[in-house]
Amino acid sequence: MHIQHILVTGRLKSQIKQEIENRDLPQTFRFLEEQEVTSADFLWADAYVNFYPIPQFQWGNLRWVHSLGAGVDRFIDLKEWKNDVVLTRTICSFGQKISEYCLSYILQDLQHHHLFQKQQEASEWTPVTPKTLSSQRVVIYGTGEIGQEVARVFSQLGTEVIGVSLSGQKKAHFKHVYKISERSDFLQETDWVISTLPLTEQTYQLFNHQLFQSLSGAGFINVGRGATVVEESLLWALEQPFLRKAVLDVFEEEPLSPESPLWKDERVTITPHISAVTSAEEGIACFLDTLEKINANQILHNQVDLEKGY
Amino acid sequence: MHIQHILVTGRLKSQIKQEIENRDLPQTFRFLEEQEVTSADFLWADAYVNFYPIPQFQWGNLRWVHSLGAGVDRFIDLKEWKNDVVLTRTICSFGQKISEYCLSYILQDLQHHHLFQKQQEASEWTPVTPKTLSSQRVVIYGTGEIGQEVARVFSQLGTEVIGVSLSGQKKAHFKHVYKISERSDFLQETDWVISTLPLTEQTYQLFNHQLFQSLSGAGFINVGRGATVVEESLLWALEQPFLRKAVLDVFEEEPLSPESPLWKDERVTITPHISAVTSAEEGIACFLDTLEKINANQILHNQVDLEKGY
Repeated sequence: MHIQHILVTGRLKSQIKQEIENRDLPQTFRFLEEQEVTSADFLWADAYVNFYPIPQFQWGNLRWVHSLGAGVDRFIDLKEWKNDVVLTRTICSFGQKISEYCLSYILQDLQHHHLFQKQQEASEWTPVTPKTLSSQRVVIYGTGEIGQEVARVFSQLGTEVIGVSLSGQKKAHFKHVYKISERSDFLQETDWVISTLPLTEQTYQLFNHQLFQSLSGAGFINVGRGATVVEESLLWALEQPFLRKAVLDVFEEEPLSPESPLWKDERVTITPHISAVTSAEEGIACFLDTLEKINANQILHNQVDLEKGY
Repeated sequence: MHIQHILVTGRLKSQIKQEIENRDLPQTFRFLEEQEVTSADFLWADAYVNFYPIPQFQWGNLRWVHSLGAGVDRFIDLKEWKNDVVLTRTICSFGQKISEYCLSYILQDLQHHHLFQKQQEASEWTPVTPKTLSSQRVVIYGTGEIGQEVARVFSQLGTEVIGVSLSGQKKAHFKHVYKISERSDFLQETDWVISTLPLTEQTYQLFNHQLFQSLSGAGFINVGRGATVVEESLLWALEQPFLRKAVLDVFEEEPLSPESPLWKDERVTITPHISAVTSAEEGIACFLDTLEKINANQILHNQVDLEKGY
């Protein structure tokens, strides 16, 4: 793929510009504010670089789209994706970040942080033994880059890690990988369900009444995409013995509406989509790495499979 | 060492009794409530097994004392320790447990748990990017079994780990190990100080004004022994820019007095000595393992060096 003109917009624009200046790249760049971009820019450009398609996005002469984030559903949702346009995404260190997010909330629970906080407020000394990570079974939905890294971190700490994916293909760091379509008996004895799933046709509303009722008091952590979960099913499962708690970093609508019943639910922890923020350094490093590979005609490991949606 | 009569008392008594019954051991046992133990039992016994010496403890004919916990200061504090009595202690999985305790509180901080909890209470969506473990430098006081395991866990997660010990001897998983007596310039750029130190003459009140004032806004975690810290120095350092927060699991007096100013200090987290609870299974497993080694005349890796005090 021969790329000559690159259009960069969005919040990393200026920093990418600065990085580019130190490098001897064969491409010409336009660095524009989102609202400044016009049809002419899309006709000029071979490549578009941002976290999402801007409202006035057009195919123009684009041949490459690079997503500065990991999630690409907003790009794929564009009508009639042109088959000859390559879509790449940032993969970098999201796995590590998401692992630490999940680890922090599972340890918060196992180490009884809230209980000891309440006891401290009452100057009360009542020992309660923490549970260990090695006593836990975690099921991770999604066995891609991110899911695998989460599996690596937890299995290294002695946790039993099961995976669930479309293919059910065995992957490193998972004791076993089940197909999404398989029977879900293993969910019965699961302490935690972590979803790292992207939003695709197959994952839309996957976490519904039927799935949640296979659990017996597990914790649910969503670091994938909000629309993979039916919110009413989640709230219903929390009322039942199926779900003990939920830690949610992603929502169908973001920011989460102040009217959402999730905010006030004591069994729900809400974080504002921070489990895998692309730092400027990483987003830029990954973009430049992809660009170098394109210039050298190398395989792009971060190219999105448009059929699969990730 | 030839052991014939073993006196077992304290909270694991009944469970040890149960385990013993399934084994063909050459020893005779007495399983007694603490208050039932008399001088006659100490004259009868070759060995004493409990977490601490009971008030009516006597040397009698004892030749072996096994501590069901990791800390042995209360045994060593007994007047005139008889040089021919072997002291062993539980070492088992304390390192893993203490690692998870430390990890949970460092991640709580890096992932802004308290901030997001407050935001949730106000239905407020304001993203703040978490910090990663790989951005942190941790200094661990004590490079023994426990300190090494804490170092292993953090270094595996990408944290820079420095050690401090009496000898300054290099150990695995530490980038560098300093001597306690060396200059402490490295403390200046430290994010976290974790103390896993036992209580000995050398560590008594080690964390004093002088040590704390080498820090610049670090967090301090004490999972060692309370009396290694001068409490007034700790409170003073929290008022200064030296200490940003403290997470304390051990105290000079336990339970911590309801009058202690530590309870109400917002920068202090108090837990009731739970970071390394000996589970019944582990305490028993370690005792039986030690007993088997004694019966087989093997080296005891968990024998306490009475000079060093651990």
